[in-house]
Amino acid sequence: MWNGKKDLLSMDQLSREEIEAILHYAGRLESLSGKGSKLGICKGEILITAFFEPSTRTRISFETAMHTLGGDVQNFSESGSSMEKGETKEDTIRTLEQYCDTLVIRDGEPGSVARYASMVNIPVINGGDGVNEHPTQALYDMYTMWKSFGRLTNLKIAIIGGLKYYRPSNSLVTGLGKFEGNSIIGICPKGLELSDKFRNSSYSEMPIDMAKLNETLEKIKPDVVYVTRLKKEYMPSGEDPGKYFYKIDASTMRILPGHCIVLHPLPRTSEMSTEIDPDPRVVMFKQVRHSLQVRMAVLALFSGHEDGLKQI
Amino acid sequence: MWNGKKDLLSMDQLSREEIEAILHYAGRLESLSGKGSKLGICKGEILITAFFEPSTRTRISFETAMHTLGGDVQNFSESGSSMEKGETKEDTIRTLEQYCDTLVIRDGEPGSVARYASMVNIPVINGGDGVNEHPTQALYDMYTMWKSFGRLTNLKIAIIGGLKYYRPSNSLVTGLGKFEGNSIIGICPKGLELSDKFRNSSYSEMPIDMAKLNETLEKIKPDVVYVTRLKKEYMPSGEDPGKYFYKIDASTMRILPGHCIVLHPLPRTSEMSTEIDPDPRVVMFKQVRHSLQVRMAVLALFSGHEDGLKQI
Amino acid sequence: MWNGKKDLLSMDQLSREEIEAILHYAGRLESLSGKGSKLGICKGEILITAFFEPSTRTRISFETAMHTLGGDVQNFSESGSSMEKGETKEDTIRTLEQYCDTLVIRDGEPGSVARYASMVNIPVINGGDGVNEHPTQALYDMYTMWKSFGRLTNLKIAIIGGLKYYRPSNSLVTGLGKFEGNSIIGICPKGLELSDKFRNSSYSEMPIDMAKLNETLEKIKPDVVYVTRLKKEYMPSGEDPGKYFYKIDASTMRILPGHCIVLHPLPRTSEMSTEIDPDPRVVMFKQVRHSLQVRMAVLALFSGHEDGLKQI
Repeated sequence: MWNGKKDLLSMDQLSREEIEAILHYAGRLESLSGKGSKLGICKGEILITAFFEPSTRTRISFETAMHTLGGDVQNFSESGSSMEKGETKEDTIRTLEQYCDTLVIRDGEPGSVARYASMVNIPVINGGDGVNEHPTQALYDMYTMWKSFGRLTNLKIAIIGGLKYYRPSNSLVTGLGKFEGNSIIGICPKGLELSDKFRNSSYSEMPIDMAKLNETLEKIKPDVVYVTRLKKEYMPSGEDPGKYFYKIDASTMRILPGHCIVLHPLPRTSEMSTEIDPDPRVVMFKQVRHSLQVRMAVLALFSGHEDGLKQI
Repeated sequence: MWNGKKDLLSMDQLSREEIEAILHYAGRLESLSGKGSKLGICKGEILITAFFEPSTRTRISFETAMHTLGGDVQNFSESGSSMEKGETKEDTIRTLEQYCDTLVIRDGEPGSVARYASMVNIPVINGGDGVNEHPTQALYDMYTMWKSFGRLTNLKIAIIGGLKYYRPSNSLVTGLGKFEGNSIIGICPKGLELSDKFRNSSYSEMPIDMAKLNETLEKIKPDVVYVTRLKKEYMPSGEDPGKYFYKIDASTMRILPGHCIVLHPLPRTSEMSTEIDPDPRVVMFKQVRHSLQVRMAVLALFSGHEDGLKQI
Repeated sequence: MWNGKKDLLSMDQLSREEIEAILHYAGRLESLSGKGSKLGICKGEILITAFFEPSTRTRISFETAMHTLGGDVQNFSESGSSMEKGETKEDTIRTLEQYCDTLVIRDGEPGSVARYASMVNIPVINGGDGVNEHPTQALYDMYTMWKSFGRLTNLKIAIIGGLKYYRPSNSLVTGLGKFEGNSIIGICPKGLELSDKFRNSSYSEMPIDMAKLNETLEKIKPDVVYVTRLKKEYMPSGEDPGKYFYKIDASTMRILPGHCIVLHPLPRTSEMSTEIDPDPRVVMFKQVRHSLQVRMAVLALFSGHEDGLKQI
């Protein structure tokens, strides 16, 4: 129980103060740990990651986080499990509860992780529930911005892509909306706008022909560009694909301000050229690195180790 | 070597005293450990789980058990292994032997785990060998009964389902038969009776039309109802499926005595309604929890830590 | 950095002195550790194994090695990862870098592991790169010879099989070529000769009709027979398969000298009869066991613990 919360299910449930507490905890872990020094904060505890959808970063960073906190990790995946004999996800989750101290769950169905959390007595972290939310993603996106700018207020953030079906942007808009003075601008193809339920007063939207992305960014002069994955399956057939296709490349980088950082939650496909990876403003692998400290902080806090750092 | 036994292959190999020793060891572990306190009994040891058939509980509970005992765990599965290049299971097992201190093996072929055990010098635990045995399942089933009744004698246990092809009931009938005064009643569709080799003097059988399950249970007044999974593939076509189909639901619970507990080794499919899950007599997730302590005890004893608890 | 080397990519990069240092480190670990005693040399460190091709021994022995050295391990495999969403191997490797201290990578493309290593700042161990190299395999093959003969010089080694497409022999010929007085004889079907780039002055070759394998070995009187896997897919259709097919069996063992040892990197298929497994000259499972100590030594040295054994 952290501030009366058993689970981390959405950004909406966190106050600004709680987000700051998580990011500060992460910051102290980052300064303490390095990769090689194992902390004993979760010694003797077991994390199970139960992923019903593919993952690279979320699963492995939670595993590294738990190992670095001194705990052990086990993976559950459908393949090779009793779900092949017809066991439901509900019975599976209630079984896993018996074997661990904390669960990280990813599932394709929006709201499912909250439902699983209500069935068990241990902390559940939402590792992504369909097109709904991915709160720890937003937390480390915000940590990366905080490390770059020293603040999470009064920033101009451009979020680019097909926002309608993309959970990291849902969580990020919600989280950034809790800090004053931010201007969050969704730049998306018409028809793929952010869902109404995730909008707030800091958010505005520019549904555009994506072929005009560069000139749009040139006008906005953002502090942060947040690129999301191009999901080609959402481009309707029979329409000009140029309306949906977008790519951040060297031409985009020439337009962006010198202080602007470019984030991507990864995986990327064609929407971000590898030619820009050497540009110091492109910080997506730093962002990956930050997922570790932020998820360590989330695990430590939600498993009851608010005072964990005092022991060190 | 525990009492001269290298491996745990069947319930038949265990005496009543040995079963009691395992359950008492589990009981002491349960009182000591809780989920969060890691024990050092198997510190520095490595368990490999080699599963050639699907599993949720068996694999993950052995992993949690080894982690809680202070050891490390590695998984082997066929997928992604050199078995894709034509390596035999025998060469695979002899290879894994070189990398661990204890092996838990599940295989579809009856008797195969005993054969693998004979090939290696380290302890091998049978995690289920086809339609033959699943001894650690029976041990934690019995642990659950022992925790409920304070004894494993003079109990009336109804085992329900298609017993012919179900390994947990084979092991359970064998184990309970070693304790005096028990009346084990197999309730099964005609044609799916318990195999002769697993019968003993405590066992009797009522092959029935499964549509009459409730009235049969009403007459028996069991202390324990042990529900097994309905395997639809064993219902012969061209016959009335009602003879094979069975379901424990609220109507069954109304019939059962107030002190009767209902167990299920899981996974369940349609044979047990989720509507009865809140009934305190339905203890299958407690049973899951007990799999942890019992498998810790098995690992500790068979890897030579009979005195492990004295160190604590 | 060990002797200025970040990564272990090929046998060619190692001097004779460095090979000896690895084998001596392995020898000291073997005398110290046993299976059950966990060493703290890599305490707090995390190894990720990223295998894009099947493996049993390489992956699991590296895992056991890291656990025995006191570190933690995580697996990456394509299945269930974001590569299913289109992420490239390059982005995957750069992501994994953020979560671990050392990477072991296997990939089907020759030279790929060196390319991945150049992209990251942590040590990368080549766990096999297509038909190119498998340096840690050669190191434990050599360790096994060294343990049997007390030397790696003045040995006559017959390497049998379709050498053209087999990476362990590439690495082994390269490694043995660095020690004086060795006579390495490749015995292979015509058309499957060792690639030119892996030949050295110690190496000679006898492309033969493989049906004459026994009489060829009888003439050679080798100290070591190194059997490689028969890859049936390389037997051209329309030709006599006897030219390509070979099998080491009891008849071969009768021909070989009493002091000759028989190695196989495994997995084996039909090229080596299980009937010869009990012959004490057949040491392939000892070889498997040695993979553990040698990979412990490689991990310890390449992750900067050259002095690790002094702490004990």
